[in-house]
Amino acid sequence: MIQKKKYAKAAKIIPEGYKSANQFFESVFQDKEMIWMGQNTNELHIGHNEEVHKAMIDCIESDEYCKYPPPEGFTELQSLILKDLDLEDLSIYINAGATESLYLAMNAVLSDTDNVITPDPGYLIIDNFASRFAGEVRAVKIYSEENNYKLTPKLVRENMDENTRVILLIDPLNPLGSSYTEEEIKEFAEIAKENDLFLLHDITYRDFAQKHTLAAKYAPDNTITCYSFSKIFGMAGLRLGAIVSTQEVIDVVKSIIINDVGTSMVAQAGAIAALKTKPQWIDRVKDTTFENQKIIKEAVDQCEGVFLPVYPSSGNMMGIDLSGAGIDSEDMSQYLIDRKVFTRQGSYTSNTFGHKYLRVSYSIDPEKVKVFAREFVLAVEALRTK
Amino acid sequence: MIQKKKYAKAAKIIPEGYKSANQFFESVFQDKEMIWMGQNTNELHIGHNEEVHKAMIDCIESDEYCKYPPPEGFTELQSLILKDLDLEDLSIYINAGATESLYLAMNAVLSDTDNVITPDPGYLIIDNFASRFAGEVRAVKIYSEENNYKLTPKLVRENMDENTRVILLIDPLNPLGSSYTEEEIKEFAEIAKENDLFLLHDITYRDFAQKHTLAAKYAPDNTITCYSFSKIFGMAGLRLGAIVSTQEVIDVVKSIIINDVGTSMVAQAGAIAALKTKPQWIDRVKDTTFENQKIIKEAVDQCEGVFLPVYPSSGNMMGIDLSGAGIDSEDMSQYLIDRKVFTRQGSYTSNTFGHKYLRVSYSIDPEKVKVFAREFVLAVEALRTK
Repeated sequence: MIQKKKYAKAAKIIPEGYKSANQFFESVFQDKEMIWMGQNTNELHIGHNEEVHKAMIDCIESDEYCKYPPPEGFTELQSLILKDLDLEDLSIYINAGATESLYLAMNAVLSDTDNVITPDPGYLIIDNFASRFAGEVRAVKIYSEENNYKLTPKLVRENMDENTRVILLIDPLNPLGSSYTEEEIKEFAEIAKENDLFLLHDITYRDFAQKHTLAAKYAPDNTITCYSFSKIFGMAGLRLGAIVSTQEVIDVVKSIIINDVGTSMVAQAGAIAALKTKPQWIDRVKDTTFENQKIIKEAVDQCEGVFLPVYPSSGNMMGIDLSGAGIDSEDMSQYLIDRKVFTRQGSYTSNTFGHKYLRVSYSIDPEKVKVFAREFVLAVEALRTK
Repeated sequence: MIQKKKYAKAAKIIPEGYKSANQFFESVFQDKEMIWMGQNTNELHIGHNEEVHKAMIDCIESDEYCKYPPPEGFTELQSLILKDLDLEDLSIYINAGATESLYLAMNAVLSDTDNVITPDPGYLIIDNFASRFAGEVRAVKIYSEENNYKLTPKLVRENMDENTRVILLIDPLNPLGSSYTEEEIKEFAEIAKENDLFLLHDITYRDFAQKHTLAAKYAPDNTITCYSFSKIFGMAGLRLGAIVSTQEVIDVVKSIIINDVGTSMVAQAGAIAALKTKPQWIDRVKDTTFENQKIIKEAVDQCEGVFLPVYPSSGNMMGIDLSGAGIDSEDMSQYLIDRKVFTRQGSYTSNTFGHKYLRVSYSIDPEKVKVFAREFVLAVEALRTK
């Protein structure tokens, strides 16, 4: 009776033994012993932040949430985000998460004669969104030391043409944790300006990086920045994000929005408190996350044929290449989940290279990372085929 | 640099003196003296429901919201919604509000050779969504006593053709409060089955109606039902809704979703508690809302040339026709907001008839409705031109 529309392949996410993604998530979610390294979420922050909790609880107890929020987000939150990015001359639209931001950005600027350049590995739902609005998605293979496991300006130039409309920069890159230098960002900015195209700068993991440069600083008229509250702020389950760009782009976004009656008031109340208190918690979260990488590195270094493509990672996740030990990442992920460690097989973030690497997220208690490290070393020996 | 896409005209929502919808909403929102009759929200429920508050606060205090929710919604909530509708054989997808549900439904089933039949007056963002995916939106003029101010089966037959793919039934109808009899729903079901098309049944206001029939009961394979937590549940600011249809339709919806990492965990926790406690509060909320209509009716009856197209309304809102007094609804809305009563000019829900009627929502404290009633009578005399 109806036909599914044909879009780019989205992520494969269901381990063996589960009927659906939903059943799988409910199951791991309800298992309080499960070590949570399979989503790039953050257990380190909000639990310790009474002010964020209080802001959300006050919003509930005041019954304010019985009304609709302002459709484009509270002005205070808009201002705090722009200030956080030091992009106060740009415009902003708040919505239900960076995923929705990416969808709206693609919808706003793409038409079916355009092509989009994305990295592979990358975050596959973005390719899927691009394929809904563009004629072609050019997923550029970046899983190579030669280009430091990232979509470089050189690779972009080799793969773009006159119909290229959007270059997707996931920065730091989910899943590998590679990030850009200021020089690289400047070069992307030049490419965008010369060719009248957009940099779609997904900065979801920005605050985990030791150093990070915003493309909007160098190509403000040609950059759409997508901002998330799910990661450094630890608010994944509240669904809140934003798009930052020129007034012209934001006006187009507003003409194609979906949730025209706004975004969760409770989430916005929490986000305001999280931004206001950021100086108090950012270093602890960032430093603990960064230090956790060393625990993983030590474990990986014990395993012949296993290596970290990017180290240190600029994100709160990294890839672990298992191919030299002859292990498929899906087998590893399955093995670990049976031992109550939830990680992700690479196929969640690459249709091409997914079998090679496991993705592990580590903005969690260091003691849990140590459990992973022990289990991982044993798993490599158990699963090794060469 | 980029072009706005051309879609059906969405709502006009900004009164004079405000720069933007956002500025207007923040302003009325922060004004604690403002009587809130301009959105069909509900102040009567959740404030009195400690269990709903507790469920949401527990979700915050447990830090569970640091993780992503299951992508299609918690199974418990899915089951509770299907049970609430007595549609337990159908499938469900939970998302960020009935607005998003309507968008996804349109996206799932429409292509550009299709046309969609909608009512005018109606809820204009739905026409806008239809225009994004269908070739033509046929907004049928229903503002007439002859058809009881609703899109009747007869009007549908007169306006449909072989390319009609979706018939939009907003039931009860925002803005007028008209609703369907069981006989009419049966007739729509026949039309849908005979012509292999979908009834898009927006039941946002269902629980305010004295009697309501689900189209999915009579045409389960041809109905997409959109469910909201914003109105009877009083949770507008939390953004939660659902789509209920066949497994086939829900599978297509899942292939085109946007927020593939789920919907607010706090909202879902509150919704579960709200559904579980529904027998304890539904009669009070429904009865108070229904009784409030009488206060408005008495005021309207005092005003020569002013009448209620639909009375009693089956929703928590109604239209008040001002045309016999020569008053434009925009002037009335402006006049009242200056007196701290927020209502809506008709142009929010009709591009054709909007000047004729004011929309007032009344699931609020009866004492506030009495203030409106007094101000309204004075306003009619102040603004009357004939």
